[in-house]
Amino acid sequence: FLIQIMGNQVFVTQVTGSTSIQAADSTAINGSITPTDKRIGFLGLGLMGSGIVSNLLKMGHVVTVWNRTAEKCDLFIQEGARLGRTPAEVASMCDITFSCVSDPKAARDLVLGPSGVLQGIRPGKCYIEMSTVDPETITELSQVITSRGGRFLEAPVAGSQQLSNDGMLVILAAGDRTVYEDCSSCFQAMGKTSFFLGEAGNAARMMLILNMVQGSFMATIAEGLTLAQATGQSQQTFLDILCQGQMASTFVDQKCQNILQGNFKPDYYLKHIQKDLRLAISMGDTANHPTPMAAAANEVYKRAKALDQSDNDISAVYRAYIH
Amino acid sequence: FLIQIMGNQVFVTQVTGSTSIQAADSTAINGSITPTDKRIGFLGLGLMGSGIVSNLLKMGHVVTVWNRTAEKCDLFIQEGARLGRTPAEVASMCDITFSCVSDPKAARDLVLGPSGVLQGIRPGKCYIEMSTVDPETITELSQVITSRGGRFLEAPVAGSQQLSNDGMLVILAAGDRTVYEDCSSCFQAMGKTSFFLGEAGNAARMMLILNMVQGSFMATIAEGLTLAQATGQSQQTFLDILCQGQMASTFVDQKCQNILQGNFKPDYYLKHIQKDLRLAISMGDTANHPTPMAAAANEVYKRAKALDQSDNDISAVYRAYIH
Amino acid sequence: FLIQIMGNQVFVTQVTGSTSIQAADSTAINGSITPTDKRIGFLGLGLMGSGIVSNLLKMGHVVTVWNRTAEKCDLFIQEGARLGRTPAEVASMCDITFSCVSDPKAARDLVLGPSGVLQGIRPGKCYIEMSTVDPETITELSQVITSRGGRFLEAPVAGSQQLSNDGMLVILAAGDRTVYEDCSSCFQAMGKTSFFLGEAGNAARMMLILNMVQGSFMATIAEGLTLAQATGQSQQTFLDILCQGQMASTFVDQKCQNILQGNFKPDYYLKHIQKDLRLAISMGDTANHPTPMAAAANEVYKRAKALDQSDNDISAVYRAYIH
Amino acid sequence: FLIQIMGNQVFVTQVTGSTSIQAADSTAINGSITPTDKRIGFLGLGLMGSGIVSNLLKMGHVVTVWNRTAEKCDLFIQEGARLGRTPAEVASMCDITFSCVSDPKAARDLVLGPSGVLQGIRPGKCYIEMSTVDPETITELSQVITSRGGRFLEAPVAGSQQLSNDGMLVILAAGDRTVYEDCSSCFQAMGKTSFFLGEAGNAARMMLILNMVQGSFMATIAEGLTLAQATGQSQQTFLDILCQGQMASTFVDQKCQNILQGNFKPDYYLKHIQKDLRLAISMGDTANHPTPMAAAANEVYKRAKALDQSDNDISAVYRAYIH
Repeated sequence: FLIQIMGNQVFVTQVTGSTSIQAADSTAINGSITPTDKRIGFLGLGLMGSGIVSNLLKMGHVVTVWNRTAEKCDLFIQEGARLGRTPAEVASMCDITFSCVSDPKAARDLVLGPSGVLQGIRPGKCYIEMSTVDPETITELSQVITSRGGRFLEAPVAGSQQLSNDGMLVILAAGDRTVYEDCSSCFQAMGKTSFFLGEAGNAARMMLILNMVQGSFMATIAEGLTLAQATGQSQQTFLDILCQGQMASTFVDQKCQNILQGNFKPDYYLKHIQKDLRLAISMGDTANHPTPMAAAANEVYKRAKALDQSDNDISAVYRAYIH
Repeated sequence: FLIQIMGNQVFVTQVTGSTSIQAADSTAINGSITPTDKRIGFLGLGLMGSGIVSNLLKMGHVVTVWNRTAEKCDLFIQEGARLGRTPAEVASMCDITFSCVSDPKAARDLVLGPSGVLQGIRPGKCYIEMSTVDPETITELSQVITSRGGRFLEAPVAGSQQLSNDGMLVILAAGDRTVYEDCSSCFQAMGKTSFFLGEAGNAARMMLILNMVQGSFMATIAEGLTLAQATGQSQQTFLDILCQGQMASTFVDQKCQNILQGNFKPDYYLKHIQKDLRLAISMGDTANHPTPMAAAANEVYKRAKALDQSDNDISAVYRAYIH
Repeated sequence: FLIQIMGNQVFVTQVTGSTSIQAADSTAINGSITPTDKRIGFLGLGLMGSGIVSNLLKMGHVVTVWNRTAEKCDLFIQEGARLGRTPAEVASMCDITFSCVSDPKAARDLVLGPSGVLQGIRPGKCYIEMSTVDPETITELSQVITSRGGRFLEAPVAGSQQLSNDGMLVILAAGDRTVYEDCSSCFQAMGKTSFFLGEAGNAARMMLILNMVQGSFMATIAEGLTLAQATGQSQQTFLDILCQGQMASTFVDQKCQNILQGNFKPDYYLKHIQKDLRLAISMGDTANHPTPMAAAANEVYKRAKALDQSDNDISAVYRAYIH
Repeated sequence: FLIQIMGNQVFVTQVTGSTSIQAADSTAINGSITPTDKRIGFLGLGLMGSGIVSNLLKMGHVVTVWNRTAEKCDLFIQEGARLGRTPAEVASMCDITFSCVSDPKAARDLVLGPSGVLQGIRPGKCYIEMSTVDPETITELSQVITSRGGRFLEAPVAGSQQLSNDGMLVILAAGDRTVYEDCSSCFQAMGKTSFFLGEAGNAARMMLILNMVQGSFMATIAEGLTLAQATGQSQQTFLDILCQGQMASTFVDQKCQNILQGNFKPDYYLKHIQKDLRLAISMGDTANHPTPMAAAANEVYKRAKALDQSDNDISAVYRAYIH
């Protein structure tokens, strides 16, 4: 790999013989965005999707929304969004349709199911999968979309509900580079940086690895906090010391604070980080690469799920250590 | 626990009935230190000890040094230190003797062995154990020192060779509070903050938990970097993305940079973090508290040790993932 | 559950209200088998399939075989088997078609792919899936076969190449009970016992759990043998002592013997036990049930795969401990 | 290593240059034992010690017993044993003193504590440590006993309360071979086989590895049984199938039966197998040998201990999987 930085752009070049086959790009954090005049569709108004759509609207995009439970759309319609009745309708009405749902099965159903996206895809239309799924699902979706003449980009995001609301997500894109360029105003609206990582599947791979690291970090923090308590130490002091050292990070600070306050309101669902760990482990499996830390973390999250923490924040893995 | 912050002091109060039995203190980062006029002894000039002694000398302390391999003392004698021939001699010549060695056995031998510290302890003399050891060892050392009329403090440090050189360590102290106060100029010289955590053993407990977290973080980072490579992703891009997100920290950044540069020069020995993990797991054992992340990490470090990485930096755990 | 034993039959009854919805059956080890006059098809002549087909032929069944690499069929044609050109042809020529392939993808492709089984299925025809796959795959195959009027049974087997050759497999069957009864002479030919476990999917679940236990046992044995060596003990004496105690079993004895002789000829492929562990862990995932032993074992097998042991026996996990 | 079998004797020979430095021996299961006329002492009447002493008495040995809680001695006094008031007294009154207590600390205290064995040791007296402890403890005890002119043997046993009662233990001995020979009638009375493994420490090592394997097997079995339940399968059928296959063993059968009956009466204490796992992991640590299965098992047992299962049988690890 060759990495070149020019202005706010990062070019990741994988040298195969003498040909560059990948390039990366990073858009700026920018108050003055000129919104694309293309019609934008958005499927899925969960923790992440809601903030993204708000920011798209705020920056002047024309957005048609759809959600499995339709009531969630009302708020966005009041903010100026249009209502799509089915994924197929949204895809056929819009130039660029984004999807942001919970897992590989939901992402696949949205495209392939009855009244699915595929029925609305025509040559030239763009479909952008923002869900964090496995590379195989991305490959499959890319194939079916392009087989109908559509253009496909994957663009999973690193972040949380808060960062989504703040338009500060980090976006990992891969697939059709022209789609990436066509929706640059969208990515500027929702994120602080975006990376273009080459062929479809690479963003899924990278995102799963990042979330794997996050899941293992979170379990480790919970393990530290509970061991402090179990050995008679102050958890607050433990956090104070941790925040004085080199491991200090926004993540460590916020998650610990929330745990100490007993606040497990979801910023990122525990069930989703467990799904990400599972997919990352499986990706390691395919690559014959051991991931013992992720494997250990995955078991702790499974215990947390058995304790009914699925719909709480990932920090609720803490409870797997005290029950 | 009750935590009160007054100026740059943190008081950790554990309420038992109505009596406060613990207090914490944090000294300022302070250019103008008035060095104590007490004679300081220092045993152990390893990665951490060397930087500490330099800073003690720089801030005007009178320091007598001893090291198992005597040549290491020369440099410090040139900087103004005196030479002690045995641990016993240092302890008997000095008012306050610090020790900073590699593991519980070395710490115990230094005190109890032939020509050991214990033979130089007289009523009123202070002994400060800075090695990261288990709470049982601290309890034992505290007992033997105080049984001779000595005063005992444990003061393990969080940090690395670099932070030690920079006088930016975080110091966790526990034991005899009067010792903590008597050597405040020493702690100011070597660290950016110090915490006083109550009875002897608490600092060992807290330090082991911190290092357990650090060890698991490090293994997780190595797991992420290697999985990126195994799945065809750029490790540099992985790091760039990581550093854009909430998990960004000095630790993540420095360790990844070093790995990408193939630089495994020890800032903290891999064999020592493995020892710390072992001791933390054992502490969890005593408390009937599962530590599955630490247990997984410990096995990865054991593999790294089997690959001859003991004397490299903790980041060399990376090699356990690629061999 | 209610378990009743009558003669050599085991009835597993799950009481829901007052209705029995499951029943189990166990066929005898029986030298005098009257072979069914139904035409038998067999797809997949790997380690397990080869022995099964030999025993079907020996006991007088009329068998048509197909294998992805056709040369493997020759031997069986010499023993009296007929050759099928495609899975579709075998299914359409035979009354009862068995399949025994390596993993869920291969099992699904065999049915759904070009010239696949599905194209040969007509009302009344029986399809018996003997591959060890996940319950979801079984459910899917069951649905497509029955949607064409076919009758579906799953019948994964516990055992090894040796037991397959000896006709001593243990067969777990579930799905359409009439199929189970129609091919009882086949099961008598290949196995020492068969269990009927109710609705399709149950045999896959049970088999995955059994193989999960086997995979963890095998990794544990390898861990013991290598720790013996690493601490200066005789591995042979370790085995001798193990075989004197209550943990003694054919499995422990044979696997240890093979390891001590450096014989890793596949009796059951290492890559297959790793696949089974993965599927069992995933099944636990769906059920929110932690499986930390399987998770640890899975990582050890992944390391063994990275060391090129995929096509060796499961006992080659030993090598993951010594490299 | 060279292994020779002559009659019922096994000779383990480690060839260093041309000198044999180890030898192993196996005594027969023998109804007609001629009891030694040496006076036998026995310290520790727990699960294992009780059965051993009964068998020593039954076979005609003269035995003096001591136990921390003296009431347990009464039963044996009725059977003909004499009462010792302190470990020191027993050691000074007897020619050969056995000890069988719970962990390294108890074993060390018994010898080194007030009124300890050491005070009764005179030149020629034999001390046999039967507790399962770490090799370091054995080395230490061997040194102190021999420094007083005593003769030292370690002789930990593989088995359970039932096997102890039945005189069917497997004995691993190492240390002073003359002691091993002098008490052969004792080993014949309590065990079905004994092995002599060379220098002191080897029996501890071998026993820890065996118990490590046992602990991992037990956790694996519990994981299988609970996953069966969590996925709707009959646990009894699971056991039936397991017992038809090559993994069938007395251990698997008995432990599963007990679990299915909810019988967790201790045959071997859960807290002791956890202690053994801890010591085995630590031994691997010293040898730089990863033991990921044992590490995973250890965490499950720690959870079981947190659920108050310490004084139940090892099979109570089952409860860590269902709570």
